[in-house]
Amino acid sequence: MNEPPRPTSPDGNLGAIDATVVPRYGGPATFARLPRLDEVGRADVTILGVPFDSGVSYRPGARFGPAHVRASSRLLRPYHPAYDVHPFGDQQVADAGDLGVDPFDVLAAIAGIEDGARALVRETGATLLTIGGDHTIALPLLRVVAAEFGPVAVLHFDAHLDTWDTYFGAPYTHGTPFRRASEEGLIDRSASCHVGIRGPLYAARDLVDDEHLGFLPVRADDFESGGVTAIVERVRARLGDAPVYVSVDIDVLDPAHAPGTGTPEAGGLTSRELLGVLRGLAGTRIVGADVVEVAPAYDHAEITGIAAAHVVYDLLALFARRPGTDHEERA
Amino acid sequence: MNEPPRPTSPDGNLGAIDATVVPRYGGPATFARLPRLDEVGRADVTILGVPFDSGVSYRPGARFGPAHVRASSRLLRPYHPAYDVHPFGDQQVADAGDLGVDPFDVLAAIAGIEDGARALVRETGATLLTIGGDHTIALPLLRVVAAEFGPVAVLHFDAHLDTWDTYFGAPYTHGTPFRRASEEGLIDRSASCHVGIRGPLYAARDLVDDEHLGFLPVRADDFESGGVTAIVERVRARLGDAPVYVSVDIDVLDPAHAPGTGTPEAGGLTSRELLGVLRGLAGTRIVGADVVEVAPAYDHAEITGIAAAHVVYDLLALFARRPGTDHEERA
Amino acid sequence: MNEPPRPTSPDGNLGAIDATVVPRYGGPATFARLPRLDEVGRADVTILGVPFDSGVSYRPGARFGPAHVRASSRLLRPYHPAYDVHPFGDQQVADAGDLGVDPFDVLAAIAGIEDGARALVRETGATLLTIGGDHTIALPLLRVVAAEFGPVAVLHFDAHLDTWDTYFGAPYTHGTPFRRASEEGLIDRSASCHVGIRGPLYAARDLVDDEHLGFLPVRADDFESGGVTAIVERVRARLGDAPVYVSVDIDVLDPAHAPGTGTPEAGGLTSRELLGVLRGLAGTRIVGADVVEVAPAYDHAEITGIAAAHVVYDLLALFARRPGTDHEERA
Amino acid sequence: MNEPPRPTSPDGNLGAIDATVVPRYGGPATFARLPRLDEVGRADVTILGVPFDSGVSYRPGARFGPAHVRASSRLLRPYHPAYDVHPFGDQQVADAGDLGVDPFDVLAAIAGIEDGARALVRETGATLLTIGGDHTIALPLLRVVAAEFGPVAVLHFDAHLDTWDTYFGAPYTHGTPFRRASEEGLIDRSASCHVGIRGPLYAARDLVDDEHLGFLPVRADDFESGGVTAIVERVRARLGDAPVYVSVDIDVLDPAHAPGTGTPEAGGLTSRELLGVLRGLAGTRIVGADVVEVAPAYDHAEITGIAAAHVVYDLLALFARRPGTDHEERA
Amino acid sequence: MNEPPRPTSPDGNLGAIDATVVPRYGGPATFARLPRLDEVGRADVTILGVPFDSGVSYRPGARFGPAHVRASSRLLRPYHPAYDVHPFGDQQVADAGDLGVDPFDVLAAIAGIEDGARALVRETGATLLTIGGDHTIALPLLRVVAAEFGPVAVLHFDAHLDTWDTYFGAPYTHGTPFRRASEEGLIDRSASCHVGIRGPLYAARDLVDDEHLGFLPVRADDFESGGVTAIVERVRARLGDAPVYVSVDIDVLDPAHAPGTGTPEAGGLTSRELLGVLRGLAGTRIVGADVVEVAPAYDHAEITGIAAAHVVYDLLALFARRPGTDHEERA
Amino acid sequence: MNEPPRPTSPDGNLGAIDATVVPRYGGPATFARLPRLDEVGRADVTILGVPFDSGVSYRPGARFGPAHVRASSRLLRPYHPAYDVHPFGDQQVADAGDLGVDPFDVLAAIAGIEDGARALVRETGATLLTIGGDHTIALPLLRVVAAEFGPVAVLHFDAHLDTWDTYFGAPYTHGTPFRRASEEGLIDRSASCHVGIRGPLYAARDLVDDEHLGFLPVRADDFESGGVTAIVERVRARLGDAPVYVSVDIDVLDPAHAPGTGTPEAGGLTSRELLGVLRGLAGTRIVGADVVEVAPAYDHAEITGIAAAHVVYDLLALFARRPGTDHEERA
Repeated sequence: MNEPPRPTSPDGNLGAIDATVVPRYGGPATFARLPRLDEVGRADVTILGVPFDSGVSYRPGARFGPAHVRASSRLLRPYHPAYDVHPFGDQQVADAGDLGVDPFDVLAAIAGIEDGARALVRETGATLLTIGGDHTIALPLLRVVAAEFGPVAVLHFDAHLDTWDTYFGAPYTHGTPFRRASEEGLIDRSASCHVGIRGPLYAARDLVDDEHLGFLPVRADDFESGGVTAIVERVRARLGDAPVYVSVDIDVLDPAHAPGTGTPEAGGLTSRELLGVLRGLAGTRIVGADVVEVAPAYDHAEITGIAAAHVVYDLLALFARRPGTDHEERA
Repeated sequence: MNEPPRPTSPDGNLGAIDATVVPRYGGPATFARLPRLDEVGRADVTILGVPFDSGVSYRPGARFGPAHVRASSRLLRPYHPAYDVHPFGDQQVADAGDLGVDPFDVLAAIAGIEDGARALVRETGATLLTIGGDHTIALPLLRVVAAEFGPVAVLHFDAHLDTWDTYFGAPYTHGTPFRRASEEGLIDRSASCHVGIRGPLYAARDLVDDEHLGFLPVRADDFESGGVTAIVERVRARLGDAPVYVSVDIDVLDPAHAPGTGTPEAGGLTSRELLGVLRGLAGTRIVGADVVEVAPAYDHAEITGIAAAHVVYDLLALFARRPGTDHEERA
Repeated sequence: MNEPPRPTSPDGNLGAIDATVVPRYGGPATFARLPRLDEVGRADVTILGVPFDSGVSYRPGARFGPAHVRASSRLLRPYHPAYDVHPFGDQQVADAGDLGVDPFDVLAAIAGIEDGARALVRETGATLLTIGGDHTIALPLLRVVAAEFGPVAVLHFDAHLDTWDTYFGAPYTHGTPFRRASEEGLIDRSASCHVGIRGPLYAARDLVDDEHLGFLPVRADDFESGGVTAIVERVRARLGDAPVYVSVDIDVLDPAHAPGTGTPEAGGLTSRELLGVLRGLAGTRIVGADVVEVAPAYDHAEITGIAAAHVVYDLLALFARRPGTDHEERA
Repeated sequence: MNEPPRPTSPDGNLGAIDATVVPRYGGPATFARLPRLDEVGRADVTILGVPFDSGVSYRPGARFGPAHVRASSRLLRPYHPAYDVHPFGDQQVADAGDLGVDPFDVLAAIAGIEDGARALVRETGATLLTIGGDHTIALPLLRVVAAEFGPVAVLHFDAHLDTWDTYFGAPYTHGTPFRRASEEGLIDRSASCHVGIRGPLYAARDLVDDEHLGFLPVRADDFESGGVTAIVERVRARLGDAPVYVSVDIDVLDPAHAPGTGTPEAGGLTSRELLGVLRGLAGTRIVGADVVEVAPAYDHAEITGIAAAHVVYDLLALFARRPGTDHEERA
Repeated sequence: MNEPPRPTSPDGNLGAIDATVVPRYGGPATFARLPRLDEVGRADVTILGVPFDSGVSYRPGARFGPAHVRASSRLLRPYHPAYDVHPFGDQQVADAGDLGVDPFDVLAAIAGIEDGARALVRETGATLLTIGGDHTIALPLLRVVAAEFGPVAVLHFDAHLDTWDTYFGAPYTHGTPFRRASEEGLIDRSASCHVGIRGPLYAARDLVDDEHLGFLPVRADDFESGGVTAIVERVRARLGDAPVYVSVDIDVLDPAHAPGTGTPEAGGLTSRELLGVLRGLAGTRIVGADVVEVAPAYDHAEITGIAAAHVVYDLLALFARRPGTDHEERA
Repeated sequence: MNEPPRPTSPDGNLGAIDATVVPRYGGPATFARLPRLDEVGRADVTILGVPFDSGVSYRPGARFGPAHVRASSRLLRPYHPAYDVHPFGDQQVADAGDLGVDPFDVLAAIAGIEDGARALVRETGATLLTIGGDHTIALPLLRVVAAEFGPVAVLHFDAHLDTWDTYFGAPYTHGTPFRRASEEGLIDRSASCHVGIRGPLYAARDLVDDEHLGFLPVRADDFESGGVTAIVERVRARLGDAPVYVSVDIDVLDPAHAPGTGTPEAGGLTSRELLGVLRGLAGTRIVGADVVEVAPAYDHAEITGIAAAHVVYDLLALFARRPGTDHEERA
């Protein structure tokens, strides 16, 4: 067939398929119909799917997350007015496809994810934006990021702390990645925070441990009082100018906004609030990100998938607005 | 069978079927179980279904919108406390049924909608409230309204600008009605506005064009700061005392509140915010309205349909509160 | 089989099944996997299912509510940080199973519920938290509570007043329990209020009647202005120090947050707002509660069920924070 | 609006809306978009909705059945090749709308249905085809039919016998209509039969009682051996030339073919088998019919609704092929 | 609360809750509302849930299978006419609840299932009927059965052979249990067979291996020719009079009849065919059984759950008809 | 990233991604994870998506069909035992992606499909297997096939004749492709047939016209009597040894087996029957094929998608078994 019609940006970046030639419901199934990494050969940002959910404790299904978020990203257009950037044009974004991850052995899976992510980063030099999969994958991804940047400030959007110790005796699950990461020295304990925390805990001690592990919790309830602006201030103050890794568990959203997830908790954020906080971070030095825990079997009409795809899109916009990018220099 | 039991208001208007005689899940399938136009012969407001969706660019299905919104309107009761009006009693509201619109030829469809709407207005002298169908239908409806009232202030609730030029080379689609309407001189370029705008655009130029075409954009994000009250003020200031046409694309709501639509965007309004803005417009001179883009195949448990039906109900309340109505005089 | 692994609190209360031994998707189907009443023999709080929906006027199905809310409660963990209590450990909570209620005779059903609830209270001396079922059941439950405490302040979360007189000539339906209760002298007319009221009424008179029957209405729209804090203040001022019965019709939530209910109305509360108001009531003297109108056939991915289960959990936390409890004394 | 475009048959009967003028997803919500009874004034067959489900013992929701079956009938076209008849043209078929039935009092409901059906038959002289609603309604409908024709052969398609005595002490429920009817002398005990019986019973005695009450059971399993042809022979032999009342509980179909019903049983008929048996009955003297137990909240993509609508369509074809009709005479 | 009302059979067996006292949508969540094992203390048959799905290769979710099959079993009544037995009365059936199985370590899980099942059998002496869970669990269950009865004839209903060697290098998954079982000498290689095999294989060699491992494949396509009767003959001939273990993967059904499963294949059996084959086995010496691979997140309206519950019910009837049972002696 | 792991067949054909390295829920979104055409450069069979549904008369949505059928094809394995072929190995199959088709202009779309298909055939010399899209697309596809092979025998699986003349005055819709094709001389009028015809027609004349246009109708009801074997005989007799084009409208299946389609009719085929007929055609000279009318918004759990994917897989097997292929020669 003919080459798919793709616009090239002034900077020479190959963008998404032109929707006025191939309608959005057709064409390639890459994220936002962006080029595959092998099509472009190089990238500033790579999007990597990690279809793995053997670390979940309740509803499984996030293994289908990467395909679902990609399918839900078809409506994304090239210009983001809230940031005044072209997320697909101001930088080369490429879809690196999915890692093949062992579903039957969590330790092997974690090692495989670490190896695959490291190889990809080495090969491309690009920033990695990962679509999960369950939250277990944050640990190997943080290992790769910390190897490059040292301990990073983790900005963690989630209903849950994910700093529990073990579950069923297992130290590596979707409820424990940030404890392990903190123990391994991968995170900056003075600059990390959770946003959206809510719901019941195992014990009051959970919060004490969490603080020792380096996190400041911003609760979902806090959005009722000061609104997005106040939250943004608290988060920016906490992050300081550390290199930031953003990890978005889609269950940070209320079940109304993200039914398609594995451990839903009532009383969550709206998608507008989540995007609002991200928009408040323009100019932050983000060095990597993931969006996890989208479980499509529980989604309806892509409510969850669309929210996740928009989060990915906003993260791409944040990448294009990082210190040192052209955008920053133009401003 | 016997005549269905309908209350008659003090003004002699025939209302909805009495729910204490025929339960709401039974009885006629008209909007809110109101009388058909041919039953009452005259009307102050007619509700017209336009089952047409050949102008959509992504998820089709709004052709089933009129039937779905009617089915979702069965719970509406006769008194609206927020406006202190009886929307079905203070004025004669009648359901005019559906237009038969050609699904295979967009131009023929637009012409047919214009003819059908004009004939209905001529025949009844009533204000027209249309249930779509996709947003393409706003163009012929604005032609009919502008022929009577001159250029109107368009109050446009939507996630999208709908002022794009062409799509796939086609000038008449659900993404272009307000550009065409502006070009045709149907709208008051000093008084029109969008409410709820969000999501990615094709280019920064979209906003420049949009302004030239006569629109002030109120973004969904703006609801985070000032809330409904501030939005109402901005909208009323913009509308001034021009005759107003209200066009509600249900995708102005967040996908959580309106999954059943064709081009959903995260970060939207809640149904309470949308109804709140409408309630802030009491006393405005509204001369016509539509509610479009309800795509039932993607709805669940009538979440979207109920929101749309309530919007129709609030629009009927606004009609009953227009300058010159009895209500206004009583006040 | 072996005894299920349950932790015992310092106070000797038997808690929920240990999730690190039996995963949450397995184990008993009691609320939050708590012990059955016959397992523990005594209780401070009993949870009773009343599977009955013959009083509904629109969508039926709340008869499946108790099973659905229990199924949706499996993720609840033992510590509630917002109240700093262990709802399952600071008091003995037990699941008393379901009442067997006649679906074909509303009067017999109401009598059966009254008898069953009274017997349970007498037998255990425990506070009763009921999961419905439709709202009809609030009347017999109030009879039981008022017999013990005298007229109670009813804190009623709902989209609807539920103080209508008759429907289809029937005085006992899900739209009339609070009129009947007020007529029977079961409620404190100076201290009761509705929260979340919205949507169309039959007539302006509905509000006048409602006030005479003893209710102050807090409308859903009121949440747009002052937020949760202002609502809490109004509610606490109204309740004073009367003994309070909390009745939560899940349709107080917006259809986005509670699609699985029988008479949904647009423009409702978020689950965060509802939980926020409850959290504002810590220290109130609550003497009984119900959560009703969850209709699972219309739910998706347990959105509604999870919201309802969290409401039950917060009510349990409120019980643990009542005046005279250990918690209160510790504080 | 203009008169809807309807073809008139050579016999002067007014048919369904012309789908080449008004697409099938639009236009009136009557069955198959046929004329309302008040539009045509006379009828050979009337279709009556009875939205009532207070007699169900498990999943409620059949109260929404009439609206759902009508919505699912929009694709029906005017010529039935299997019978070589025009069901809407060879006879005047009219939609008589819905009866208003009391949902809170089963006895009052049964009386109301009997009165309403009798009045309709008296007024029109037409054969009545009823869409339920739950199976309770068969009793009053049989009273009306038997008053005109004497005891009738009941051809009962169902997974269940529906000849139980009481449920929860109640003699009038959806599990008992044929026992009551037999006791009241409404049915021909030598000519009635069930088709599709399967699933567990309360006791072996159920079958003994059932035989005494006048029924021959044809089991669903019997379809595995002889196929439709053999079943048709058994059924025709049983019916003889008695006047026949056909009662189709949609749960006669397998849950795969009819998920949207209240008491589903595995191992049922396919829709092709059910239609096949009906087609085998051409020339039978059918004097009335009902299609019941469609519960839309459990349906998906109108699988159940479409099956039910086709059953109604085939019943209309059978009416057009009755002894004494023109068709019969032409043949 | 009072004791739940349960009938006692002439043999002194405690049956399911009386549905004329507690409606089927209420009451305990045990299988068919049967007594818990701890309520009766002894049993002829125990039903055990094994919520485990870490062995699946595609759609996960069978961990929710036990709860879903139990919920879908509420309509089962006490008498099975096809076998003329009372499955809950002619023998004591008790629900043993769920095993707590490690989701993160497949080997530990298999060991845990083996231990749990063996302990239960030892404790009760009862026949074990297990509800999965994925098909991995058949291996430990066969170990327990073979330890008591020696190598058993496996009657395996499935779309797939499940005799593959490894998947992702893992020898213990839901695609390999019968290879492992054959290798371990647990099955009678002269008497085992698959029923319902269809769909693509990895290689022609799969069938050769499968034969060597001791299985005769009966393909789904074979049902088109001879029907259920011919299949029953082939199966009975194969089984001879060996002790039989029945393993039913619900994906033996067509996706229309069992959408809620993990690896669906088109062209499967109807639920009537599956039940028909089981009914043909009356009098067979069945020594254990499982029903696996029900994945509720993909089910709709309990289509799959009801089919699985009926399969369990028919297996219970088969147990009651085994050689040596009273039934056999009565006959 | 590394090259995806693909097996190469003895004939040098590149197959589907190895599922033991990349699990089936991950990896590329091509049909069955086969190589893209640009990856392999040559092909014996190309699979082409045509996302177009502007020709539908009722439920739209088949524009999402190609993506959905691909997503539903992930479970397909490399060896087809019913044909004893490796559909992905005995021939080079490549996924050619989607055509970009104009949604707003049916004539332009038809021309575009014809051009695109012709170019693809010319470029590759491969047999074309198209996934729709609605049935309108069969016309341009037949033009391409007939240009190469002369008039072809059309083997048309469908509930409907699709030989109507116009709809809404439009000659090119999804109900008319075979009339247009016959008029254009594209089909062999002595050898074409429909399989699965059922449901109401517009008039008896439809069948007369259809015969003149060259079709023999095999009705769905015919499957009840002779079964699949008899149908295969009739079809093979009709096809003779003409070159055959197979066109499968998924609505040939019963709504239970294919809810996800636009104009469903009760009483259809099971997926096993459809696959059975295809399997009876081994050795037939098939020169092209399409699978159309999959409308995912109405599908559930991929019931429809999986059936369609299996049909594509069986068609690929038929291609591998055509006269002149190696397989044929080996046999």
